[in-house]
Amino acid sequence: MRASPKWIAVEWAATHVRVWAMGANNKVLAEVNRDYSTDGPDLAGLESALLGLISEWLTPEHATPVICCGMTRLKTPWRAVPCVPVDPHQLVRMPTQDARLDVRVIPGIMQRNPSDMMFGTETLIAGFLALRPGFDGVICLPGAHSRWVHISAREIVSFATYLTGELLALLAKRSSISPSIADNGLDNAAFDQAVATGLSHPASVSARLYSLHASVLNGDLDAVSARSTLSGLLIGQELGAARPYWLGQNVVVEGTVTETDMYVAALRTQGAEVERLASEVLALEGLKVAYEKEDVK
Amino acid sequence: MRASPKWIAVEWAATHVRVWAMGANNKVLAEVNRDYSTDGPDLAGLESALLGLISEWLTPEHATPVICCGMTRLKTPWRAVPCVPVDPHQLVRMPTQDARLDVRVIPGIMQRNPSDMMFGTETLIAGFLALRPGFDGVICLPGAHSRWVHISAREIVSFATYLTGELLALLAKRSSISPSIADNGLDNAAFDQAVATGLSHPASVSARLYSLHASVLNGDLDAVSARSTLSGLLIGQELGAARPYWLGQNVVVEGTVTETDMYVAALRTQGAEVERLASEVLALEGLKVAYEKEDVK
Repeated sequence: MRASPKWIAVEWAATHVRVWAMGANNKVLAEVNRDYSTDGPDLAGLESALLGLISEWLTPEHATPVICCGMTRLKTPWRAVPCVPVDPHQLVRMPTQDARLDVRVIPGIMQRNPSDMMFGTETLIAGFLALRPGFDGVICLPGAHSRWVHISAREIVSFATYLTGELLALLAKRSSISPSIADNGLDNAAFDQAVATGLSHPASVSARLYSLHASVLNGDLDAVSARSTLSGLLIGQELGAARPYWLGQNVVVEGTVTETDMYVAALRTQGAEVERLASEVLALEGLKVAYEKEDVK
Repeated sequence: MRASPKWIAVEWAATHVRVWAMGANNKVLAEVNRDYSTDGPDLAGLESALLGLISEWLTPEHATPVICCGMTRLKTPWRAVPCVPVDPHQLVRMPTQDARLDVRVIPGIMQRNPSDMMFGTETLIAGFLALRPGFDGVICLPGAHSRWVHISAREIVSFATYLTGELLALLAKRSSISPSIADNGLDNAAFDQAVATGLSHPASVSARLYSLHASVLNGDLDAVSARSTLSGLLIGQELGAARPYWLGQNVVVEGTVTETDMYVAALRTQGAEVERLASEVLALEGLKVAYEKEDVK
């Protein structure tokens, strides 16, 4: 791809980075995805990491605008709720050595009480609102960190972050009970029952973890059912804590990961009316919101 | 130490192994401690691992009795509750190549409902009962796996295992919130408040994990207070689930690790009458129980 893009969009998420070369009328000229195991590059190495992805898209004739979201390690001034998810007039300029770059970062959003933060999710929300300008309700985004975001009048009113996916991964892959937990597979009955337990008896979750391991060792449970039970307990516990976000609310569960289906199933079992949205374009739509109104030349 | 011992005691715990050369009248002739990072040796390598620790204590003239507890990977027939913690007539012979060895293993104990298991803790309990033959009540043993064991009439009636210490270590050292959690240090006020929260609002624990990280990032909390809050939340959640084990019970909290003090403090705050026992000898006392009545020649 030798034609110079008008601007470049960058989503630097916890486990992957995606870059898009954007042409006239926001046409995507080229795209690169790369997986990472760490949560983003060091700030010191950010410019060279960026150049490794996009240098062939740059021209020596002028600085190409680069709009980034995510970048959890970059200390930008945070914006505070309530606020619109992305404000194109509050992007943060990142100093660079390379004159071909003009990098702006979408700042993360913080909440004071209860303390919470997001770096990147605000851009997905902006993308969602670009597609659904009139939306009022709650978006749930499952994943390693699952987030519940209450939106009203185009602003993020409040949000809550849960480590559910990360806890599942730690217990399934790096703990003393890992040998009893399958890497994948789903036993629906075990999952449903565990969600109900996690919701109604949240304290019992900590008591059930080692018990799952013992059940597998003594032959009462298979490793797929153990994984399904573990997922269900953790998701049930999260749903219990996040109840104000879904009870009687207009809820959209957004995501493409396996967990998304599990959240939808669990919420429907609880009688919640839930819409399922699997979109690959939210990050890019959010980055467009930041660029289109931005006065970057 | 060239004098051949009468027998050899072995405690193979999750993170360390201790061996004792035992003389007449159960006098300790020599002792070796070694730390491990894994949970015991492979069964295939067990004999050579043992020989690496005790070979210089062995004599070619006869097989020396070796009594082991722990050994989580050895598939011995488990014993089921209710039962005495160690039955010298139910040791399991481990086949060995080396004729100088006569190895017997104390089998673990299992519980069917709720499913649970212990490998090694039963020997500590036997040691405790050797020191306190008339004890009736509950022993709590904090650690990576904390166990609550109900004892009546010299038998283990029921028990419950919690991953609290392991979860704390995973979150403090291997998770996305680790940068905000100090390696040690204790803020008593933060700990006490978090125990109360974990006990009364167990579902909120999952919501508080990322929030702690955000509080540290935005400067509202220091990393020692974050660690203390995390410990308190997890211990409070465990105490809530283990309430039948301590409410109105005669409770001894046993251990030498830092967490022991935290459990004692948390239980006393809840009005429980708790005795604190820091003993280094329980494992060896339990192993003596297995040997003294055993008909090993």
